Amino acid sequence: MSLYETADKIKSMEIRGAGRIARYAAQALKEHGNGLKPSDLNTFQREMEKASEVLLKTRPTAVSLPNAVNIVMREVRAAGTIEDAKEKLTKTADSFIEDSINSVSKIAEFGSRHIKDGDTILTHCNSEAALACIIKAHEDGKEIEVFATEVRPRNQGLITIKTLNDAGIKTSFIVDSAARYYMKRVNLAITGADAITVNGAVVNKIGTSQIALCAKESRTPLIVAAETYKFAPKTVSGDLIDIEERPSSEVLDDSILKDLKNVRVRNPAFDVTPAAYIDLIITEKGAIPPEMAYTIIKEYLGWKIEEFS
Amino acid sequence: MSLYETADKIKSMEIRGAGRIARYAAQALKEHGNGLKPSDLNTFQREMEKASEVLLKTRPTAVSLPNAVNIVMREVRAAGTIEDAKEKLTKTADSFIEDSINSVSKIAEFGSRHIKDGDTILTHCNSEAALACIIKAHEDGKEIEVFATEVRPRNQGLITIKTLNDAGIKTSFIVDSAARYYMKRVNLAITGADAITVNGAVVNKIGTSQIALCAKESRTPLIVAAETYKFAPKTVSGDLIDIEERPSSEVLDDSILKDLKNVRVRNPAFDVTPAAYIDLIITEKGAIPPEMAYTIIKEYLGWKIEEFS
Amino acid sequence: MSLYETADKIKSMEIRGAGRIARYAAQALKEHGNGLKPSDLNTFQREMEKASEVLLKTRPTAVSLPNAVNIVMREVRAAGTIEDAKEKLTKTADSFIEDSINSVSKIAEFGSRHIKDGDTILTHCNSEAALACIIKAHEDGKEIEVFATEVRPRNQGLITIKTLNDAGIKTSFIVDSAARYYMKRVNLAITGADAITVNGAVVNKIGTSQIALCAKESRTPLIVAAETYKFAPKTVSGDLIDIEERPSSEVLDDSILKDLKNVRVRNPAFDVTPAAYIDLIITEKGAIPPEMAYTIIKEYLGWKIEEFS
Amino acid sequence: MSLYETADKIKSMEIRGAGRIARYAAQALKEHGNGLKPSDLNTFQREMEKASEVLLKTRPTAVSLPNAVNIVMREVRAAGTIEDAKEKLTKTADSFIEDSINSVSKIAEFGSRHIKDGDTILTHCNSEAALACIIKAHEDGKEIEVFATEVRPRNQGLITIKTLNDAGIKTSFIVDSAARYYMKRVNLAITGADAITVNGAVVNKIGTSQIALCAKESRTPLIVAAETYKFAPKTVSGDLIDIEERPSSEVLDDSILKDLKNVRVRNPAFDVTPAAYIDLIITEKGAIPPEMAYTIIKEYLGWKIEEFS
Amino acid sequence: MSLYETADKIKSMEIRGAGRIARYAAQALKEHGNGLKPSDLNTFQREMEKASEVLLKTRPTAVSLPNAVNIVMREVRAAGTIEDAKEKLTKTADSFIEDSINSVSKIAEFGSRHIKDGDTILTHCNSEAALACIIKAHEDGKEIEVFATEVRPRNQGLITIKTLNDAGIKTSFIVDSAARYYMKRVNLAITGADAITVNGAVVNKIGTSQIALCAKESRTPLIVAAETYKFAPKTVSGDLIDIEERPSSEVLDDSILKDLKNVRVRNPAFDVTPAAYIDLIITEKGAIPPEMAYTIIKEYLGWKIEEFS
Amino acid sequence: MSLYETADKIKSMEIRGAGRIARYAAQALKEHGNGLKPSDLNTFQREMEKASEVLLKTRPTAVSLPNAVNIVMREVRAAGTIEDAKEKLTKTADSFIEDSINSVSKIAEFGSRHIKDGDTILTHCNSEAALACIIKAHEDGKEIEVFATEVRPRNQGLITIKTLNDAGIKTSFIVDSAARYYMKRVNLAITGADAITVNGAVVNKIGTSQIALCAKESRTPLIVAAETYKFAPKTVSGDLIDIEERPSSEVLDDSILKDLKNVRVRNPAFDVTPAAYIDLIITEKGAIPPEMAYTIIKEYLGWKIEEFS
Repeated sequence: MSLYETADKIKSMEIRGAGRIARYAAQALKEHGNGLKPSDLNTFQREMEKASEVLLKTRPTAVSLPNAVNIVMREVRAAGTIEDAKEKLTKTADSFIEDSINSVSKIAEFGSRHIKDGDTILTHCNSEAALACIIKAHEDGKEIEVFATEVRPRNQGLITIKTLNDAGIKTSFIVDSAARYYMKRVNLAITGADAITVNGAVVNKIGTSQIALCAKESRTPLIVAAETYKFAPKTVSGDLIDIEERPSSEVLDDSILKDLKNVRVRNPAFDVTPAAYIDLIITEKGAIPPEMAYTIIKEYLGWKIEEFS
Repeated sequence: MSLYETADKIKSMEIRGAGRIARYAAQALKEHGNGLKPSDLNTFQREMEKASEVLLKTRPTAVSLPNAVNIVMREVRAAGTIEDAKEKLTKTADSFIEDSINSVSKIAEFGSRHIKDGDTILTHCNSEAALACIIKAHEDGKEIEVFATEVRPRNQGLITIKTLNDAGIKTSFIVDSAARYYMKRVNLAITGADAITVNGAVVNKIGTSQIALCAKESRTPLIVAAETYKFAPKTVSGDLIDIEERPSSEVLDDSILKDLKNVRVRNPAFDVTPAAYIDLIITEKGAIPPEMAYTIIKEYLGWKIEEFS
Repeated sequence: MSLYETADKIKSMEIRGAGRIARYAAQALKEHGNGLKPSDLNTFQREMEKASEVLLKTRPTAVSLPNAVNIVMREVRAAGTIEDAKEKLTKTADSFIEDSINSVSKIAEFGSRHIKDGDTILTHCNSEAALACIIKAHEDGKEIEVFATEVRPRNQGLITIKTLNDAGIKTSFIVDSAARYYMKRVNLAITGADAITVNGAVVNKIGTSQIALCAKESRTPLIVAAETYKFAPKTVSGDLIDIEERPSSEVLDDSILKDLKNVRVRNPAFDVTPAAYIDLIITEKGAIPPEMAYTIIKEYLGWKIEEFS
Repeated sequence: MSLYETADKIKSMEIRGAGRIARYAAQALKEHGNGLKPSDLNTFQREMEKASEVLLKTRPTAVSLPNAVNIVMREVRAAGTIEDAKEKLTKTADSFIEDSINSVSKIAEFGSRHIKDGDTILTHCNSEAALACIIKAHEDGKEIEVFATEVRPRNQGLITIKTLNDAGIKTSFIVDSAARYYMKRVNLAITGADAITVNGAVVNKIGTSQIALCAKESRTPLIVAAETYKFAPKTVSGDLIDIEERPSSEVLDDSILKDLKNVRVRNPAFDVTPAAYIDLIITEKGAIPPEMAYTIIKEYLGWKIEEFS
Repeated sequence: MSLYETADKIKSMEIRGAGRIARYAAQALKEHGNGLKPSDLNTFQREMEKASEVLLKTRPTAVSLPNAVNIVMREVRAAGTIEDAKEKLTKTADSFIEDSINSVSKIAEFGSRHIKDGDTILTHCNSEAALACIIKAHEDGKEIEVFATEVRPRNQGLITIKTLNDAGIKTSFIVDSAARYYMKRVNLAITGADAITVNGAVVNKIGTSQIALCAKESRTPLIVAAETYKFAPKTVSGDLIDIEERPSSEVLDDSILKDLKNVRVRNPAFDVTPAAYIDLIITEKGAIPPEMAYTIIKEYLGWKIEEFS
Repeated sequence: MSLYETADKIKSMEIRGAGRIARYAAQALKEHGNGLKPSDLNTFQREMEKASEVLLKTRPTAVSLPNAVNIVMREVRAAGTIEDAKEKLTKTADSFIEDSINSVSKIAEFGSRHIKDGDTILTHCNSEAALACIIKAHEDGKEIEVFATEVRPRNQGLITIKTLNDAGIKTSFIVDSAARYYMKRVNLAITGADAITVNGAVVNKIGTSQIALCAKESRTPLIVAAETYKFAPKTVSGDLIDIEERPSSEVLDDSILKDLKNVRVRNPAFDVTPAAYIDLIITEKGAIPPEMAYTIIKEYLGWKIEEFS
C-alpha cells in the first residue's frame, strides 16, 4: 500500500483506531522510504519530511500519529548516509510496530486483572486495547457479559460486537442513549483513548464523556486502556487537543439536509472526559491514575519542556 | 380509520407522541362506537370495553392512553340508553381532543416565557409540547438557536428538525452522544414526557436521563413540557411504569444479528429521569416543580387512592 | 399488662418499633381507663391525662406515641359521661389498633411493587413496615436477597434476620460498617421511620443517614416505609425532633468505662436523613415524595397551624 | 408622606426590605386615597389605579409590592360608593400592615426553634424576618454567635450589625468573599427572600446563591425566613422574576468609570438560589420545604391559574 | 515467640495493625533463622523461604507483610555463607524494625501539624500512626477532643479509647453508625491504612469508606497516616487488593446462626476509599496527595515494572 | 528604597502580588547588602540574616517571599569573602528578578492557549500572571470579554480593570457577590495564587474558593496561573499555610466599630481552594494538574525532605 493510499485510508477512517493508525503510519514511512531512489541523503530526508507531512495532516486529533512519525523520523534525520537512513528507518519502524502490538497484550494482561468473574462490562466505540482487556479476562475463564454501544455516527459498535461475538463473549448491543439505563448494573466501564492531556483528561470518541458521567453517578469504575503514545506532550505547553469536526454526511444524507435551510449538522468526532471521572489508566507501563499523565509524558515519552514553548 | 388501524399505527409508532396517541384513541373509540349497531346497551358497553382493551394493549408505557380511554369510557359506562351512550361518547371524545390540543398551546405560552432572547436550547426526541414552547418563543420575536438530537434508534430527531426548519428556527442536528459536548453553552434544555410518576420522575424517550444528567452537571436548567394527562395515577399505589422494550430490528438488521450468536440487542424505548434533575414541569394548568406530581394526580386528575390499592 | 408495665417496656425498648409503641399505648390507655372506678367524669379525665403523661415521657422521639395518645384522648376529653368516655375510649383505641395493623399490610402491598424479581435489597434496623414490603414481594414469588445490618448498639438486626429467615428469604447479615461495601450491588434500600418532618427529612435509627448517603452515591434508590402517623405535625411550627440519647451502658459496660476517666460514651438513638436522599415514602395512603410531608400532615392527619404556634 | 415621596423612597432604596415596602405601599395608598376628593366613584377608582401604577413601577423585582397593592385595590375596585371605597381602603390597608408586622413575629417564633444553644449563624443582607429569628433565639436565652456579611454594593450589612449589636448578640462582620472561609464552622445560615418562585427558588440579594452553595458544600442547613406574600404567583404561568440591574454608581464612582472606556459595571441586585440548596422556608403559616411554594400560592395566597395565563 | 506462634497471632488478629504485623514478621524471621542449625547455606535459604511462606499466608490483604518479608529475605537470598546470611538477617530485621518505629514518630510529627488547637477529631479503627498524630498534637499542648468508633466486629475501638484515655485526651466513644451524626462538627478525620493502591485508593478497616464519604459530605478533611510500606506495588500491574473475608463467628455466634438456615454472615475485613475522598496521605517521607502513590511506589519503594507483569 | 521602606510597603500592601513581593525582596536584600560596610564576612552575613528576618516577618502567607530570600541568602551564606558575598548577592538577586519577570511571559504564552476566540473569562483579585494570560490572548487577536470582581476589602479589582482597560479589553466590573450570577455564561476562570500546597490546594485572595466552587457547579474550567516559586515546600512536612488576618480597618472604619461593642471584624486575607476545583496550574515550566505540586516542589524547587522535618 502506497503512502498516499495509507493517508487516504486514515483520513476516510478505513484505517481507524489510534494504535492501528500509528502502526500503519510507521509502515507507510518505511515502505515509502525504501521505495525512494534519491541522489543524496539530503534529498532523501526532504522527501521523507514531505511524506511525514502527508500523514500528519490526515487526522489532527490522533495524537499517536505524530508520535509514531516523530519516533521514526528522528532516526531518519540523524542518519549519516542513505543506506544508514534506510536501515534505521526499517529497523525503527519495525520495532515500533512490534512494540505497539505488544503494548496491547501488556495492557490486556494488566487491565484484565480489574475484571472479576461475574462482571458486567460496558464499552464504547471500538478500542483495540479495551477489547483486549475484556477478551483476556474471558480467556482466563472469567464469566463476563458486555454491553457495547452503537457509536453513532459511524457505528463502530458493529465492529466491536463482531469481535466480541467471535471471542465467544455474551454481548448486548445498545444505542448510545441507553448507556445510563443499564449503568447501575454495570460493574466496570472500559474505553480506549485517542489522546490524554497533561492533566489526565481523556479525549476519546464522542459520547465517552457522558458515559463517564453516568458511570460516576452510579459508582461504576471507569478505566481507560491506552498505550503511552496516546499521551499528548504539547498539552504541557498549553496546547489544546483539536477536536476534529467531521463531514455532516456521516450523520445525515446531503439530500435530506439540502431542503432544510435552517438546519446544519454538527459532527464533533471526540469529546473530553475530565480526570475526575476516570479511576485508572492502564498503559503498557503499568496502571496509573490520570493525574500521572505529566509523569508519563516526561519519563516514558521523554519530552522536554524546551522542545515546545 | 378503523379501531384496528388506529391500534396498529399506535403499535408501529406511526402514531407517536403521547398527545397524539391520546387523541387518536379517543377518536377511534368515538368512531368505533358510532359504527356499532348493537341490539342493546349491555352489548354496546361490552363491545366498547373490548375496543378499549385493543387500544390499551398497544403501548404499555404510554400513560396518556389509559387516561384518554378511561375518560371516554367512564361516560359510556354511565349511560342509560344506547343513544345516550353514543351521544356522550361523541361529546366526551370531541371535548377531550379539543382540550388536548389547547393544552399544547397553553403549555407553549407558559413554557416560552422561560426562553430568553439569545438563548441556545437543546431538545431530545420529538415532543409536540416541547417544540411548541420553542416555536412560540420564536414567534414572539426571540432570537434563539436549537440543538436537536438524532434520537436513535427511530430517528425522531429528523421530524424535529423538519418542524424547526419550517418554523424558521436556526437548528443544529447532532448525534445523541454529542449532547454533553455542547451542553456547557446551552441555556435551557426542554423535553416532553411519556409519563410522570408520583414523585416527579419523568419517563421519556431513551436518552433523556443522560441528557438531564449532563444538564445538571453544567447548571443548565431542564424543563419538561407535559400535559397533565401524562401524570401516572397508579404510581401512587406503588406501580412502576413499565419500560417497553421494542424489537431488536429497530436497532440492528436481523440479517446482521443472525450471524452473531453471542449478541443480542437490548432496546428499551424509555428511561427515567429523577426529579432532582428537573427544574420545572410545564403543564397546561401552570408550571410546577416535579415534586408536585402528587398534587396534580389528586387535584387535577381527580384520582382517589381507593380506586387502586 | 398495666399502664406502668407498658410504659416501662416502651422505655426499656422491650416494646420497640413505632407502630407497636403506638398500638401498645392505645391498648394501655384503654385498659387503664376501663380499670378505673372514678367518682365523676372530671376525675376520670384527670386520671387519664396523668396516664397519658406517663406514656408520653417514655420515648420523646417516637412521634407515633403522642399521635396515638392524642387520637384516643381527644375522645375521652370530649365525652359527656363516664360511661360515654369509657365507651369512646374502647372504641377509638380498638379502631386505632386495627387501622395501624392494616396500615402495615397496605404499605406492604404498595411497597412490594417497587421490588423486582432478582433484586438485592438492603435494610437497616427492624422496621415492621419495611420488612412487610420485603416479605410481600417474596410471597408474590419474586426471588430476592436481603442484606440486613447488625444495628449497634442494640442489635435489632438479630430480630430482622430471624423474621426474614422464618419467611424463607435468603439473607446476608453484615456489620453496620459494611453497608457501603455491598451498596453498589444493592438494587433497593428500604428502611422504616421513627418520625418524618415537614420538609421530608426522616428521623430513624442511628446509621440510617449514612446508609442513605451510600445509597445516593451508588444510585441505589432508598424508599422509606412509614405509616402516616409517623409524620411530625409540630415541625410545621418549627419544632425540631428531639434526638434521644440513650444510656452509655448500651454501648459499653460500665465496668470498662469506669477506668477510662477521659472517655465518655455518646449514644444517640436516631439520626436525620435529608429528603434529598430519599426517593419515595410509602404510606398506607399511597406513595409520596418526601417533600409531600406537609400535605400529609395537613390533609391526612388534619392538624391545623392554629393548634401549635 | 405623600404617594410620590413613598414611591421615590422605595425606588432609591431608602425604604428597603420587602416587608417594609409592602407596608409603606399599603399606607401610601390609604393616605393618598383618603386625601382625594373625587366627584364620583369612577374617578376615585381611576385615580387609585394610577396611584397603584406609580408604586408598582418603583421596584420590579419586589413581589410583595404588587401583592400588597393588589390586596388593597381589590377592595377599592369592589366598592359601591366613594365612602365605602375609602372605608374599605383604610380598613384593608390597616389590617394588611398589622398582619405583616405580626408575620415577622410569627416567623421569629417558628424560626428561632431551629437555632440551638451554642450555634454559630451566618446571615446575608438585612432581612427583618431573618434577624427576628436570630434575636428571638437570643431573647430565649440561647447563646449564639452571628457572622454577618458586608453586602456590597450598598452595604446593608452595616444595618444588620447595628441591629444585632443593639440586641446584645455577639457578631462578626466579614466581607462577602469570606463566607466560604467560615462556613464549615457555621451551624445554620438564615436569609430572607425578595421573591419565591413556584418551584421554590428564592430570589434574594445578590450573593445569596453563592452563600447557599457554600452552605450546601459544608452540610450547613440554610433556612429562608419569608412572609407568604413573597411567593410570586405569576411564576405559575411561566413568568420569570425580573432581576433588577441597578445603577453603576452604586458600585463605582462615575468619575472612575469615565476614564475606563472598555469597562462597564454590571450591578444585578438579586440572584436566584435553587430549591435544592434550601432546607426550609419559614413563613408565618408554618415551616415548609421550598417545593411547597405552589401550595402556598394556591392555598394561602388564593391565586387561581385563570387569573394569569 | 516461635515463627508459628507469630503466624498464629497474626492470623487470629492478636497481632494487629499493619506496622506491628510487619515488625513481628521481621522479628520472627530473624529469630527463626538464628535458631536454625542447617548443614549448608542452601538448606538455610530453603528453610527461610518456607518460613516466609508461613508468614505470607496469614493475612492476604496486609501489604506490609510481604514488603517486610521481602526486604529481609532479599538479604538472605544474597548472602554468601550461613554466617553472612544470619548476620545480614539480624541486621536487616533490626534496622527494619527500628525504621518502622521511627516512621510512626515521623508521621506523628508531620500529621500533628494538621491538628489545630480546639479541633475535634474523628478516628476509626486502631491505627498506630493515626493515634500517634493525635497524641503528638496533644503533647504539643493543643486542646483537642476525639471521637472514636467502636469498630465492629472486633471492637478495636476499645483499644483506641484506652490509648487515648491513657494519653489524657478527652474522648467520645460512639457506635460506627453514629459517624455521620457527629461529622458536621468534626474538624478533621484521621485514619490509618492497610494498603494503598497505585491510584491512591486506601484499603482500610471496613467502615472507613463510609466515614470518608460522610467527611466529604461535610467538608471535613480526611487524612490518612501511613508508612510508605503500605503502598501496594503489585497494583501497578493491575493486581487488585484482595479483601479478606473473615469468619462469621466474629459477627454472630455459631449457635445463633445454626438455626437460621436462610441467613449467612458476610464479614469483609476491609473496604476501599477512593482517592477523591482523601485530602492527604502522611508518610514518613512527607505529606502527599493520594494520586502520588505511583511516585512513592517507584521512587521510595524502588519497585520496577519489570518485577511483576 | 531602603530595606525598611520595602518591608513597610510589603506589610502595608503598597507592594502587592506575590511576584512583585519576591522581586522587591531580592532587590532590597541586594541594595541593603551593597550598602553595608562590615568589618568582616561574619558580620556581613549576620547583618544579612537580620535583614532577611525583617523581610520574612512582613507577610507570613506570601510563600514567594521566603523562597526569594532563601535563594539569595543561600549564596551569601556560601560566600568566602565579603567581596565574593556582595558579588554573588548582586548576581543572584538580579537573575532571580529577571527570571521572575520572564516567568510571567512564559505563563502568559502557555495560559493564553487555553483562551479561545469568543471566550468570556472571569478573574478575581489582581494577579500579574493571570492578567498576562488574558492580555496575551487579546494580543493574539482573540476576541474576548472579561468579568473582573471588586475584591473587597482592598478593591484590587480597580487595578485589574485599569490594566484590562488600557490593554483594550472589553471588561465588566462586578461585586464579589455577583460571581455565581454570571458564572454559567463564563467559559474560563483564571486566578493567580499566593501559595500552593503539596496536595495542590491553592491559597489565594479571600473569595477565590467560592468562585472556584461556583465554577465547578457550572462546569466552568478554573486555571491557576502561578510561578513555581509559589509552591510551598514546607507543606511536605505537614506545615499549614498561615492565613493572615489583616486589620479590621480595611473592612470597617474604626469610628463605626467603636460604638458596636458586640461586633468585631474578621478579615482573613486568603482562603484555600481544594485541588478538586482546579483544572490546571500554569507555571513557567508547563501546565500541570494540581496534584503534581509535590513533583514541582521536589524536582524544580529542589527541596529535600531532610531540610525540614
